[in-house]
Amino acid sequence: MTASNLDGMIISNPVNIRYLTGLTSEGTLLIEPKGNIFITDSRYLEAVNSFLTIDQEIVAYDIRSLNKYDYESFFAGCENVGFEEGYVTYEMYKAYLRTYQVNLVETERIIELHRMVKEEEEIDNVKRACMITDRCFEHLKDFIKVGMTEKEIAYEIEKFMKLNGADGLAFDTIVATGPNSSMPHAIPTDRKVEPKDIIQFDFGCKVNGYCSDFSRVLFVGEITEEEERVYNFVFNEYDYILKNLTEGLDTKELFKKCEQDYKDKEFDLLHSFGHGLGLDIHEEPILSSKHDIKLKKNMLITVEPGVYVPSKFGIRIEDTVLINKNGANTLTKSGVAICKIRG
Amino acid sequence: MTASNLDGMIISNPVNIRYLTGLTSEGTLLIEPKGNIFITDSRYLEAVNSFLTIDQEIVAYDIRSLNKYDYESFFAGCENVGFEEGYVTYEMYKAYLRTYQVNLVETERIIELHRMVKEEEEIDNVKRACMITDRCFEHLKDFIKVGMTEKEIAYEIEKFMKLNGADGLAFDTIVATGPNSSMPHAIPTDRKVEPKDIIQFDFGCKVNGYCSDFSRVLFVGEITEEEERVYNFVFNEYDYILKNLTEGLDTKELFKKCEQDYKDKEFDLLHSFGHGLGLDIHEEPILSSKHDIKLKKNMLITVEPGVYVPSKFGIRIEDTVLINKNGANTLTKSGVAICKIRG
Repeated sequence: MTASNLDGMIISNPVNIRYLTGLTSEGTLLIEPKGNIFITDSRYLEAVNSFLTIDQEIVAYDIRSLNKYDYESFFAGCENVGFEEGYVTYEMYKAYLRTYQVNLVETERIIELHRMVKEEEEIDNVKRACMITDRCFEHLKDFIKVGMTEKEIAYEIEKFMKLNGADGLAFDTIVATGPNSSMPHAIPTDRKVEPKDIIQFDFGCKVNGYCSDFSRVLFVGEITEEEERVYNFVFNEYDYILKNLTEGLDTKELFKKCEQDYKDKEFDLLHSFGHGLGLDIHEEPILSSKHDIKLKKNMLITVEPGVYVPSKFGIRIEDTVLINKNGANTLTKSGVAICKIRG
Repeated sequence: MTASNLDGMIISNPVNIRYLTGLTSEGTLLIEPKGNIFITDSRYLEAVNSFLTIDQEIVAYDIRSLNKYDYESFFAGCENVGFEEGYVTYEMYKAYLRTYQVNLVETERIIELHRMVKEEEEIDNVKRACMITDRCFEHLKDFIKVGMTEKEIAYEIEKFMKLNGADGLAFDTIVATGPNSSMPHAIPTDRKVEPKDIIQFDFGCKVNGYCSDFSRVLFVGEITEEEERVYNFVFNEYDYILKNLTEGLDTKELFKKCEQDYKDKEFDLLHSFGHGLGLDIHEEPILSSKHDIKLKKNMLITVEPGVYVPSKFGIRIEDTVLINKNGANTLTKSGVAICKIRG
């Protein structure tokens, strides 16, 4: 904050509040010269007070107990108070101006940028989420039978992850069979698995709020020549990216090369090659040729090249990946060879 | 829009886009003099084009195909273009100004206010969600046994609703046993149901995107005198509110009276008496003595008085309610008499 020339900051994004304090209750965190304040409402006050420790130096207030003068006193003497312009709505922004009577300054996602490099404890949580995800995929290979619907399979995924230690889902599970797989963001339908189908999975879970993200395809019995050709292309992109990721890398050039590969084969590039993840499933950075990113040790990202053949099928391979001093590790570890199931 | 003196509008809130068009894909809807435009990205384009019908008069664009001049042409000749100040972040607001080169005007939640009064089809979806919710509660009375954890019961609720026709949950399920029930927004824990426990439930599901919302308590074997006294107070508030709700009512006075009842008994009022619901679990209006609301036929709201005795227990009764010409109906229909289970 000192570097950004801020005398205080209003933190409204609940994920940033959780990151900084551990608090999961609704409220607003004020960082001000005299100390830290958490304004919550009466529904949460008991939970907040039992969670906070003296070391955290946070005083919790019930929003109903605060009047106009309390609000104006919080940042008294502050010249520039930061706010989260990427989270705060225009309506909230105007309300903050009225309520706190201060000069509000954009903070250019300082907390989000800080969140890009993970602490050991954060990495451990993601590792645990990835282990559950891998075990779930292994379970699916036996579980899936011809005739099951996409919805039934998606439900099994959610159940398995929750009963095996996940707090919840990291995002809406994708199970897309046959031609449904040609849409990267397919929603599970009542379509039943058929012999010779391709099945695209994209799922992940949370452990202590931290996400995993993972995609694979399974082939029911057979794989066509066209599917195999596309699979090998996607796999080669995936493998090439993984082998090049390491601390210090400027990712722009890497992804320019990948984009050229897509152009050479006349495949459409429908989404980026990956994204950061942590308490949010999509965090900084975005991995594409349009973003200037220099990788740092302990960043957590996804690698997820995909090719979609309209109305026919799609193939995406995705792992959650930890950036190291000399290279990168996948934290989801399921095999990436072409996998056929009996069905 | 004509009444609001707008020449066009940028609609960014996905729930409003779904309400107006049925589209569930990510994107931005532009209402402009020449027609309607949906700007989406390549991941969704195939799904969007297969969903749209000619009657909808919406043209879908891939965001990558649009340049600076396209954006500036969309609202060419428009003086005032509305935006959703309660949804759009300050960062998006500034980007819209740069991109569309128009005068942006706050729209004071016109779409949200329009959403308050429901169409028949919307009410049918909520009714179906409520039926599933009621059936789930009936199932729980047999299912719950002493020794089960809050998490296990919450999981059963989710499973039951999804396997019985729900698209998904309307919000995070609350199962709070014993003293955990004293927090209105308790998160399910590993605490096990004990004899003589009180169990507070708050759950709901979605059907075609439309929500139900429902709270009840169950008593394991016994009920204490204090619990019975509080239950009867909450029940009387619930009953009084329900009997008075009807088209044309100004709710402010009704809830002032209820607030006075809380004061008379020295109970804290930790949350409002209810809220609108529909595609969102919390919609306009808010029901409290601080909000001037005139009820209209086919509004859908919750009625949910609750009393919380710190560190001891809490009791909330809640139904999803339809406002009629002469009165109001609960759409969740589970009984509200004190209910003891064997456990």
